[in-house]
Amino acid sequence: MYLILVYDVNVKRVAKVLKTARKYLHWVQNSVLEGELTEAGFRKLKADLSRVIDLREDSVLFYVLGDWRYTRRELMGVKKGGEEWIW
Amino acid sequence: MYLILVYDVNVKRVAKVLKTARKYLHWVQNSVLEGELTEAGFRKLKADLSRVIDLREDSVLFYVLGDWRYTRRELMGVKKGGEEWIW
Repeated sequence: MYLILVYDVNVKRVAKVLKTARKYLHWVQNSVLEGELTEAGFRKLKADLSRVIDLREDSVLFYVLGDWRYTRRELMGVKKGGEEWIW
Repeated sequence: MYLILVYDVNVKRVAKVLKTARKYLHWVQNSVLEGELTEAGFRKLKADLSRVIDLREDSVLFYVLGDWRYTRRELMGVKKGGEEWIW
């Protein structure tokens, strides 16, 4: 499976969320990460994140793509944050 | 085509970017919008956004899905910003 993760968390927890998510995914933009992951890896990522975020205040949105080949990405403006584009 | 849009723009332009993007897409999270769009609609959205954002400073990332049925969405934590979930 191919995962896109978008986070919207309190600024106090951004560094921790990013550090946790980068163990599993590539950082592509300020609050966006992506990557190929197994179902087990996805469960582990969610378990790790649940220990870092405040579920009453923060928000993490996942898009689970069956196959990234059905998806294309386009960017307008500057490339921010991420330095790990893989496609 | 089904589009996911993630923006990362200067706070001065957030309201304008959101207003522009919401003419075409549903707002699902703080900086994320989604929706079904034609290729012509997508071109028009990009033309409209190019008049609103500063290409040297702002960033708008698009994921173009051939078919959203190959994609599932999961949310951890609170539902923020968006009030327009359609699936």
